[in-house]
Amino acid sequence: MKKVMNQAEQIVEEMLEGMVQAAPGRLRLLEGTGVLVRADAPVAGKVGLVSGGGSGHEPAHGGYVGKGMLDAAVAGEVFTSPTPDRILEAIKAVDSGKGVLCIVKNYTGDVLNFEMAAELAEAEGIQVEQVVVNDDVAVEDSTHTSGRRGIAGTLFVHKLAGAKAETGATLREVKEIAEKAIARVRSMGVALTPCTLPESGKPSFTLGEDEIEIGIGIHGEPGVERTRLLSASELTRTLAEQIVKDVPFRSGERVAVMVNGMGSTPLMELHVVHRELMAYLAEKEIGVAESWVGEYMTSLDMAGFSLTMIQLDEELEKLLAQPVDTPTIRRFGD
Amino acid sequence: MKKVMNQAEQIVEEMLEGMVQAAPGRLRLLEGTGVLVRADAPVAGKVGLVSGGGSGHEPAHGGYVGKGMLDAAVAGEVFTSPTPDRILEAIKAVDSGKGVLCIVKNYTGDVLNFEMAAELAEAEGIQVEQVVVNDDVAVEDSTHTSGRRGIAGTLFVHKLAGAKAETGATLREVKEIAEKAIARVRSMGVALTPCTLPESGKPSFTLGEDEIEIGIGIHGEPGVERTRLLSASELTRTLAEQIVKDVPFRSGERVAVMVNGMGSTPLMELHVVHRELMAYLAEKEIGVAESWVGEYMTSLDMAGFSLTMIQLDEELEKLLAQPVDTPTIRRFGD
Repeated sequence: MKKVMNQAEQIVEEMLEGMVQAAPGRLRLLEGTGVLVRADAPVAGKVGLVSGGGSGHEPAHGGYVGKGMLDAAVAGEVFTSPTPDRILEAIKAVDSGKGVLCIVKNYTGDVLNFEMAAELAEAEGIQVEQVVVNDDVAVEDSTHTSGRRGIAGTLFVHKLAGAKAETGATLREVKEIAEKAIARVRSMGVALTPCTLPESGKPSFTLGEDEIEIGIGIHGEPGVERTRLLSASELTRTLAEQIVKDVPFRSGERVAVMVNGMGSTPLMELHVVHRELMAYLAEKEIGVAESWVGEYMTSLDMAGFSLTMIQLDEELEKLLAQPVDTPTIRRFGD
Repeated sequence: MKKVMNQAEQIVEEMLEGMVQAAPGRLRLLEGTGVLVRADAPVAGKVGLVSGGGSGHEPAHGGYVGKGMLDAAVAGEVFTSPTPDRILEAIKAVDSGKGVLCIVKNYTGDVLNFEMAAELAEAEGIQVEQVVVNDDVAVEDSTHTSGRRGIAGTLFVHKLAGAKAETGATLREVKEIAEKAIARVRSMGVALTPCTLPESGKPSFTLGEDEIEIGIGIHGEPGVERTRLLSASELTRTLAEQIVKDVPFRSGERVAVMVNGMGSTPLMELHVVHRELMAYLAEKEIGVAESWVGEYMTSLDMAGFSLTMIQLDEELEKLLAQPVDTPTIRRFGD
């Protein structure tokens, strides 16, 4: 195992410092907490949005802090939920008096710690609501999770709730958008190789030379099937079919899609997948409003990818198209 | 070797189709040529900018086609120079009558093929100029290269020449900016693992379990030294020192920096490197105007990174800050 690092115990802190320095005037690091905050937080008249979780999924979530998405991201140690006191710091830093919405991926530790932080914040007079993203259609219940896991679809929830919050909407309205997005977003992934934890230097699991795992979790949690390596087209259709039949997505509808690299799968390969996904959706007569292709929620250096689809209506499509200005995602208004 | 692909012979074409579909209304693919063009090219009153080279370095160069950077990118097969007839198609597609500047990385095949294309275009009455980027300080002459290799620093040349072209400047003025950028940009890389070619399925070279190669080229060309794995800080300083002493960069100057992932090095690790680079430059009293941290010019799935620094003056710093709107790099005006 070869990693570009100094001491494993320092890697998260050093990364966060590096991120802040790469976005001068845009991000602040709350010393000793793992919390990255919009430089101008709290933003007057705006509901605060907080997300986060274990590190190792970069650019999630610090890369999504900025106008039109998150107000703060809380980073735990690698693949480890952030503690309630750290989440509390994030909540306090972004509350403008209009309340704070926490967007949590469904892992038991994350859900418990965010809940505890919300209680602590409410005791300090801050109004806090929480939504839990559970977009992974691969498995019900998993290592670290009761119910479905939250994975890359979380980014669409950030984007949509973030756009709504920028309009000056109330906490209840922003939460409604987040819940609507969660009800309509589905994802599924595949791993070609395991990832390697900085601390142990060991692969998180093993896969044979010609073996892949379909339905993998972003921490290497078991999927639904180990099989021989499939072609890009077979793989894409295998995942897309599970997703489409889940909501279900129907002919005539419009979606946004994400082809998310897990860490070491080249962009070249992600675009080959995207091409096949477009062909598949055209056959299904499902329209595509926009595509995100790249590394959005990774698993350290795992090879593989996930697909995400979100069913849009007029309201969500408009919110998705709103301008955003974060280190990872920037878009001009359409 | 596990790759997400269909037939290796189709991977570049499929990737390009996927890229166009992911950027609807922004990019066009010139059928059967490997050329991606700005949807609105040729842009009236603007010098056309063309770059390209072998594939396998994504997002270079198709990800940089758009307002404020390139008008067209020509993709050859993986690690193979595009042929002159394809480059000619790109030149013809972007010429608005104001001439075309080709920005070429210094590899013998690329330089020859771009020169031949320029001659063919001139025979058709198009004014063409060419600049050759040779930012890699690691070695003089190399496999496929006479003189220094062109690597990730090429992106700063795209950005600066692109911003100048948007002002309506003449071909000569745009070329002058590109040449000024080339004179001031330096890079150097390190590999932790080799990359694997889709066609052969074999690693491009071998490295021991605890071995790295300093000064590697983006196709795996030999570097300057094989050594044991160093810490992130040691590695960063080793590369930065070679770069700084080359121009040389001096105390009191301002630079832009790039920490470029080679393909499978996590963003977490790139930010650890960025943090150390900032500390190093602070010690040298070199000011940093902006930082690009991410995957900008990759080598398929190679693990490792390169550092780039460009010495700025007032003119270049202003051009760098201009808005840009491409699939990979977007920024609002400052």
